[in-house]
Amino acid sequence: MKEFKLHPRLIKDTFHIIDLKLSRLLLMNDSNYPWFILVPTRKNITELYELEKKDRLELNSEIDTVSKKLSIHFNAKKMNIAALGNIVPQLHIHIIVRKKNDAAWPNPVWNNTDTIPYKESFSFKLVKDIRRLLGDLI
Amino acid sequence: MKEFKLHPRLIKDTFHIIDLKLSRLLLMNDSNYPWFILVPTRKNITELYELEKKDRLELNSEIDTVSKKLSIHFNAKKMNIAALGNIVPQLHIHIIVRKKNDAAWPNPVWNNTDTIPYKESFSFKLVKDIRRLLGDLI
Repeated sequence: MKEFKLHPRLIKDTFHIIDLKLSRLLLMNDSNYPWFILVPTRKNITELYELEKKDRLELNSEIDTVSKKLSIHFNAKKMNIAALGNIVPQLHIHIIVRKKNDAAWPNPVWNNTDTIPYKESFSFKLVKDIRRLLGDLI
Repeated sequence: MKEFKLHPRLIKDTFHIIDLKLSRLLLMNDSNYPWFILVPTRKNITELYELEKKDRLELNSEIDTVSKKLSIHFNAKKMNIAALGNIVPQLHIHIIVRKKNDAAWPNPVWNNTDTIPYKESFSFKLVKDIRRLLGDLI
């Protein structure tokens, strides 16, 4: 069986943070928002309901644990959780920390603001911080 | 204990379809997309991770069952599932049927198209159809 491979678009647009039990956690390279993406490391899955039951429950748990920890860490006003995938079919879940003073508040982030890539030193530090924050999940 | 009450904005923007075990299913009054909203009938819940474990699992099951049935019924290209809630804090999950020829494809629906309310006869029929489609879930 071939190994799981991250979709090229996700490789291009994100930084790798950490591999959880089921999913790979990525940081979107857009400094407008602390924007994370969870990708279950299963092949040929596009919709949430296509996951095997065990994986679906594990994903649930990862979404909840990660979003709660990120919410506290960033003092979020609201977490935005979404599985869209119209362009990148590989199942991936957006976990976006929203604040009242962010670039799109209170609107959804999509079709809204231009991407502002991180400065390298900043993304490096952020990835390290989140890896430490979530280290006990692996 | 006071009863669960739907947020006024959801009352204004949607039609009631059916009450499932945990959630109320609504039809968004926007004919651009078959756009549904699941609202767990619990009070003072804003984030997915705030639901009690039993409710969280039931919501999972309702999201998956409803989105799979809707996907087949509407011959969807992709289902878009999202819990945002920046404006309406009451936890609600968008379940949007996406097609290649819809008004926003392949972009997310938000900040994109102007709402086009249904003609009354059409929304009436749609609600009835979906009630029949999901009737075995209650």
